[in-house]
Amino acid sequence: MNPPPPRAPDIRTERWFNTDRPIALEKLKGKVVLLHAFQMLCPACVAHGIPQAVRLHEMSRGSDLAVLGIHTVFEHHAAMTAVALEALLHEYRISFPVAVDQPSLDGPIPLTMAAYRMHGTPTTVVIDRDGRLVRHAFGVEDDLALGLLLGSLLSGPRDRGAAKDANARCTEAGCGMP
Amino acid sequence: MNPPPPRAPDIRTERWFNTDRPIALEKLKGKVVLLHAFQMLCPACVAHGIPQAVRLHEMSRGSDLAVLGIHTVFEHHAAMTAVALEALLHEYRISFPVAVDQPSLDGPIPLTMAAYRMHGTPTTVVIDRDGRLVRHAFGVEDDLALGLLLGSLLSGPRDRGAAKDANARCTEAGCGMP
Amino acid sequence: MNPPPPRAPDIRTERWFNTDRPIALEKLKGKVVLLHAFQMLCPACVAHGIPQAVRLHEMSRGSDLAVLGIHTVFEHHAAMTAVALEALLHEYRISFPVAVDQPSLDGPIPLTMAAYRMHGTPTTVVIDRDGRLVRHAFGVEDDLALGLLLGSLLSGPRDRGAAKDANARCTEAGCGMP
Amino acid sequence: MNPPPPRAPDIRTERWFNTDRPIALEKLKGKVVLLHAFQMLCPACVAHGIPQAVRLHEMSRGSDLAVLGIHTVFEHHAAMTAVALEALLHEYRISFPVAVDQPSLDGPIPLTMAAYRMHGTPTTVVIDRDGRLVRHAFGVEDDLALGLLLGSLLSGPRDRGAAKDANARCTEAGCGMP
Repeated sequence: MNPPPPRAPDIRTERWFNTDRPIALEKLKGKVVLLHAFQMLCPACVAHGIPQAVRLHEMSRGSDLAVLGIHTVFEHHAAMTAVALEALLHEYRISFPVAVDQPSLDGPIPLTMAAYRMHGTPTTVVIDRDGRLVRHAFGVEDDLALGLLLGSLLSGPRDRGAAKDANARCTEAGCGMP
Repeated sequence: MNPPPPRAPDIRTERWFNTDRPIALEKLKGKVVLLHAFQMLCPACVAHGIPQAVRLHEMSRGSDLAVLGIHTVFEHHAAMTAVALEALLHEYRISFPVAVDQPSLDGPIPLTMAAYRMHGTPTTVVIDRDGRLVRHAFGVEDDLALGLLLGSLLSGPRDRGAAKDANARCTEAGCGMP
Repeated sequence: MNPPPPRAPDIRTERWFNTDRPIALEKLKGKVVLLHAFQMLCPACVAHGIPQAVRLHEMSRGSDLAVLGIHTVFEHHAAMTAVALEALLHEYRISFPVAVDQPSLDGPIPLTMAAYRMHGTPTTVVIDRDGRLVRHAFGVEDDLALGLLLGSLLSGPRDRGAAKDANARCTEAGCGMP
Repeated sequence: MNPPPPRAPDIRTERWFNTDRPIALEKLKGKVVLLHAFQMLCPACVAHGIPQAVRLHEMSRGSDLAVLGIHTVFEHHAAMTAVALEALLHEYRISFPVAVDQPSLDGPIPLTMAAYRMHGTPTTVVIDRDGRLVRHAFGVEDDLALGLLLGSLLSGPRDRGAAKDANARCTEAGCGMP
């Protein structure tokens, strides 16, 4: 029997776009979360990751899926500023909430990126209704596989006690494979 | 409240490939079924529908998803013979069971295609664990949307009595939208 | 200095579609020829090679480019019959002349395919105004590279004596190689 | 008979990347020029135009094709700075010379963009060996059509007197228009 997935670390943010107030993962308990970590000058992010998140956001209106973005800048900091990010959100018609990852005082890697031990961008993070990290993957995510995983999580039971069992079923189904 | 989806009609087949014995939908109760209806000379089928079904079949090994194909020839009957279909299965590495739809004595539309009132090929049919038709769509299916729908159905309860409720939840989540 | 390219071998055909009379390469002297060799059940042919030839045919109306297809069946002969090919031409809206390669009495490889020593399908053959074989490649051809090569050949001098020099200039420019 | 194409206007630049000294179109007489006008936050530019220019640059090494980029920022000026552009050139591995269009004192449209009356980005400009503007198009360029046009220009005669005739032949062939 597999151990339950670990709890998703908090996200540490400097500021937010497309939302009136900061969003804490803790407040999203009961929902399934897709967190898309990107950099605006990362080719695979703008070609694949961002359009995928935008489409998921459109498809999931009215559902329990929360789509969030986080700008995890770890290089070219002078180029990827908040004002540049804001222009990107406009040009790519991104209307879901997007955070700027909290810069580190000690190096180029921002705090959320470090807490999640991300390997780069794009990184896709999926968190279940119980706040557990069920997927954490660097690179381009396959649409079919990501849909299978999110569909299974969205359809699972909503009360916390039953969630562990839902995950087990999902693992059994091999639904999250890339 | 929406009425429950209708029961999926039986499939009427002339012969099968990639299986030792004919498959009846009735025997697949308890599983989720993806039935891909195609013609071998239909451009969108070979470019999109068949590769999508092949990938779903690979991703879902060990799960409760049954992927089936049905060759619903309604034109160019002399070209799309069983021997030609067999060569196609080999060239496109299709290893899931594929049926030849039962020809009609009265016209060009074969019997399963008529029973499902398909508008053409490709047509994607999704049947839930309780044998109900939850999706029936002509044309290219979006990977993300199809994944969301199948994931939700696979993760739903397996006993027949509860299945109706699972579908309701899935509809609530808007999971099957193209 | 490179030797001039070899002369393109004759094509040997059993029958033709989309033309009233057989076409001999000899009669196309003065034109640039794109000869697309394919099999109807070859996935890369229907996904890439055939659509590329169709688009070239549309783009080059009124020019000196002759687009020809040849059905070089070397496997699944019972599946890829002339009647099946005719249906394919209809479904993929292929309106340029297409020949059926002449079957061999000695084995599965048809005669034109053997004369050109093709490695499989799709194979793209480009013949200059002087009847010389300037490209012969197995696999998917890059659109940009093929356009550069054909553009240079179409723009070159039309009299035979000067053709060799035109090729030299093109080779100098490295224009056709991805 | 068509009139000859107009002369390509000069480009007005603020600074250059990937070259030791500014490049004047006047100095490129005798070469064929592909000038790709883009903005770094323009989705179609990074998805299509820039990769196409990068591939043309790679394919045309050793030929008479000069590939140039120009960053024609007409919106989000605070986001698309020179330092941001420099990071983009690095991330997208752009090694051909790229200019920053000269800002206007009178409005958001920079000077080269205005001189060429561009409708937006991406814009593809093709200039023949004689300095004449033979293509000027807003939007995504088709690879095959662009290859045909450039191939024909590259293969044409190099002396100025003959160039007009080469263009005429190319126009006759309808080679560049999809």
